[in-house]
Formats: sequence, C-alpha cells, structure tokens
Amino acid sequence: MMYISINNKLFLQEDANISVADLSIQRGYGIFDFLKTINNKSIFIQDYFNRFYHSAKEMNLEVELNREQLHEAILKLIEKNNIPNSGIKIILTGGFSEDGYTMVKPNLIIIQTPLNIIETETKTGVALVSYNHQRQIPQVKTIDYLQAIRLQKFVKENGADDLLYHNNGKVRECPRANFFIVTNSEIITAKNEVLNGITRKKILSLEIPGYTFSERDFTVDEVYDAKEAFISSSTKNAFPVNKVDGKLIGDGKSIITRLINDNLLKLIELDQNN
Amino acid sequence: MMYISINNKLFLQEDANISVADLSIQRGYGIFDFLKTINNKSIFIQDYFNRFYHSAKEMNLEVELNREQLHEAILKLIEKNNIPNSGIKIILTGGFSEDGYTMVKPNLIIIQTPLNIIETETKTGVALVSYNHQRQIPQVKTIDYLQAIRLQKFVKENGADDLLYHNNGKVRECPRANFFIVTNSEIITAKNEVLNGITRKKILSLEIPGYTFSERDFTVDEVYDAKEAFISSSTKNAFPVNKVDGKLIGDGKSIITRLINDNLLKLIELDQNN
Repeated sequence: MMYISINNKLFLQEDANISVADLSIQRGYGIFDFLKTINNKSIFIQDYFNRFYHSAKEMNLEVELNREQLHEAILKLIEKNNIPNSGIKIILTGGFSEDGYTMVKPNLIIIQTPLNIIETETKTGVALVSYNHQRQIPQVKTIDYLQAIRLQKFVKENGADDLLYHNNGKVRECPRANFFIVTNSEIITAKNEVLNGITRKKILSLEIPGYTFSERDFTVDEVYDAKEAFISSSTKNAFPVNKVDGKLIGDGKSIITRLINDNLLKLIELDQNN
Repeated sequence: MMYISINNKLFLQEDANISVADLSIQRGYGIFDFLKTINNKSIFIQDYFNRFYHSAKEMNLEVELNREQLHEAILKLIEKNNIPNSGIKIILTGGFSEDGYTMVKPNLIIIQTPLNIIETETKTGVALVSYNHQRQIPQVKTIDYLQAIRLQKFVKENGADDLLYHNNGKVRECPRANFFIVTNSEIITAKNEVLNGITRKKILSLEIPGYTFSERDFTVDEVYDAKEAFISSSTKNAFPVNKVDGKLIGDGKSIITRLINDNLLKLIELDQNN
C-alpha cells in the first residue's frame, strides 16, 4: 500500500483525491520539485528545497510548511511507504479557488514512487529530436508541460526518446533534463532561459582535466558537430545522448560523459553518507 | 445543492474530486471551454463545441462523448442544477497517468456556475496594464494561465483590472478576452497568435456603418491613440476599456463599443429563441 501526503495528512493512494476546484485543474497553476532517495536517504535535499521555495515565491504561492516541517512530512512518507530507492515529488498548486481564477491557499501534495534505476542502465544513450520552443518562466519549476506531452506523438514518429527544445536555433534543454555538449576542450550548457537543474549545478562544480565548463548559448548545428552530448537530471544523472534529429553524435563512446557521471555518483555517495 | 459532472456521472460539488494522478495536477495538461446559458438555454453551443473538439484534437486528447452525448451531459447538468443564467465550463484533462507523464484516457469535467451579469453592468469600463507575453499554442484553449495568475499581484499594483498581453509590442489579447481598438474608420483586432474567441467571431460578422473590420497586428502605441478600445468574451460581450497603462483611451463615451454590444445582444437573443 502506497501513501500520498496532501496538506501534511497521509492518504492511501486510492483516496488521494482533490476537488476539481483546484487551480491546477482549472488553470494549470502550480509548481513542483522532484528529488530522489537512495536507501531511504534524500539526496541533496537542501538544494531541492532552495529551488522549491524559490519557485513558490516567484509564483506568489505560500508554502504553509517551513523547511523543517516539509522535511518531516517527507520523512513521515518515507517511513510509511518503505520504498528505499524512490522519487519524491512535491507539488504546490494554486488551491481551491471559488471563482476558478483567483489564487487562494495552496495545496501541498507529496507523492513517492519507486525509482527504476535498472531501466536507465540498460540503455546506452537516448535519441532526441529538436523542437523550437522556449519554456515560459524557465527558471521556475512550474507544472507546465503542455508542449512536452502534446508532442509525445511527434517524438515517437521521429524515432526519438525525448525532445530537445531550442529557441530559434539556440539550444535550451529537454522537457525534464538539462542538456550539455562536449567539444575538444569545452563542456557547454545553456546559461539562460533554462531550468536551474540541481544535477546541472553539481556537474558544473566538477573538475574535468583538459576541459573547461562554459555556460553560454550554442546552436543545434554545434550539437550535430559535438564530440559528445548528454542530458542531466535527478533520475538519469549524466546520461549519453547518442542521436539528435537522427544524426549520430560523436563516436558513441561517451568517455567524458561517463567520467562526469562517475564523479557525480561520488558526490551522491558522499551526500548519502552525510 | 450544486452538481458537477465527471466522466458523465453527476457528483455533489463537495464530492467532485479527482485523483492527484491526473495530468492536469501533475503536468498542467488540459483544455477547456466556457459557454453561457440564458434562461437555461446554451448560447452558440455549436460554436463552442467546434472549438472544444478542435482544442482536444490539437492536444491529442480523445473526447469520449460525441457532440450529441456532450450536449446531453450538459442538459442533464442544467436540469439538475437549475441555474437559469450560468457559465458552463467543460474541462478535458490528460487523465490519470501512472508515470505522471504519459498521456492516457482523458477525464471530462463539466462545472456550472451562476453568471453574475449585474457585476459587469455596474462598471463603465475596465483598466488594463500591458505585459510582454505570447501565449503558447494560442489558438487552443488550454488550461495554461500561469502568467495571468502569477501576475494578479502586478495587475493590482498597477491599479488595473486585467492584463493586456503583447508580443514585443504587437498587441495580442487579455488572458480571458480578445481585444479590439476603434479608430476613425476601422475596428481592429489581432489576427494571429490569439485565441479564436466565439464572441470575437460574432463581432467580426457584424456590419457597422462607416467602419471596416481589420484583423491585423497593431501596437501598444496605437492602443494609446485609439478612439475606443474594448474587450470581447462570452461573459462580458463587448465591454469598454477605459484605460491602458494608466492612459485614458478616447473620450470615454464608447459609442461604437456600445453599438457593437447592442448588435451582439441581438445575435444572442436570436440564438436564445432559436
């Protein structure tokens, strides 16, 4: 049996319902964050909390729980559900609005799901298809995935696993991951108009001999010509991209990507034992 | 007691809940439409159905009910609730997604609310504040109101009633209404990248002696210099805008706006008796 926390009360999954008056249903209004647990330990939780409270503030949503209380609510859920390796999604919506428009007291929903680590590890890389779209309010982790979900069919039709958004040729990110390319001496990721990924930040803090990290605009053509490309996210860490728009990227060995991923796993292990 | 229809079953308002697994809550994924009833008669219902089924198709959402069945579901609600003058909101979400991302069988929610006609009539006009924002997938009536709701505070701080979106100076629309200006001989509204409002369409079908209708781009400066400005929506019909960015528009008499509104009311009356 799985429990879900709604406004700091636990409900069985099948009873975890909210009124259709909620502004997420009425107006797509909400933010969220997503962190993982390994052996029941939340990884980089303060980083995720920083982003979550920042998103809430930017969207004028008040979080009823402070950090300690939110952490306790998560620990309660972890204890109750007993899913050692999991994803924890914290959603904050606009609340039950009487007129379906005016913002009211937010609803806080915490959902824990098993994290399938094996699935990722059996794949050697993902194929992306580029699409011209700039996410609105990009540095806030809103629940807006209209384009990503609408385009699920388009992704499949293009033989790809996911989208790579660009803004008129300037590469941005994937719907649920940041995106990097590797050249002979640079590891490059977009600086502006993308989500401030926690894994992205951890990667930028690494030292990779012979390479410098650059946060700057780059084009889809630069992606095609890159030595390597990879995505970064809480669930995938640093994961190779082997194709973009049907074109193979580099020689497929992903040596730097794997080096970055190994370093990342060490940081995660450190936090896990902290 | 008020009833709400969920997947063609009636629930008391307080029991009208859906699972937090719904893609509207998880990913802001859904479309809707909104029509009104006068004396229990739905106005321009086929126009609203055209747009609703179009939105659903564009977002790859399947509507389980055909037009006749949807109409019956609405009639059932009208009969049960007995609110002669009402707004009827039809929401279609991405459904209960197991992984919180993949689109599944949509949920159809129909909500009826009393329409407060008097509130509108006691005001002489609305004040707008302009804001640089282009709605994504503009011709589809999605539930995405992230900017509109986030900016409620900004609107108040600017002494305004609502937003006027422009795309780098090119005027688009309000969050819940189309927008028109009147010059000496033209009645102008944006052609592209705005919602295909039903009231907008009805207005464009009118004949106003001495004036031609133009669907084209126009600038915020043209708004400041206009003789009149007005918004159009299902609830407000054609309603004067008396201020934009604190600047008074025209002489405040709104003669053409009122003429258009009168013509619109005649069309509504015709449909009502049809």
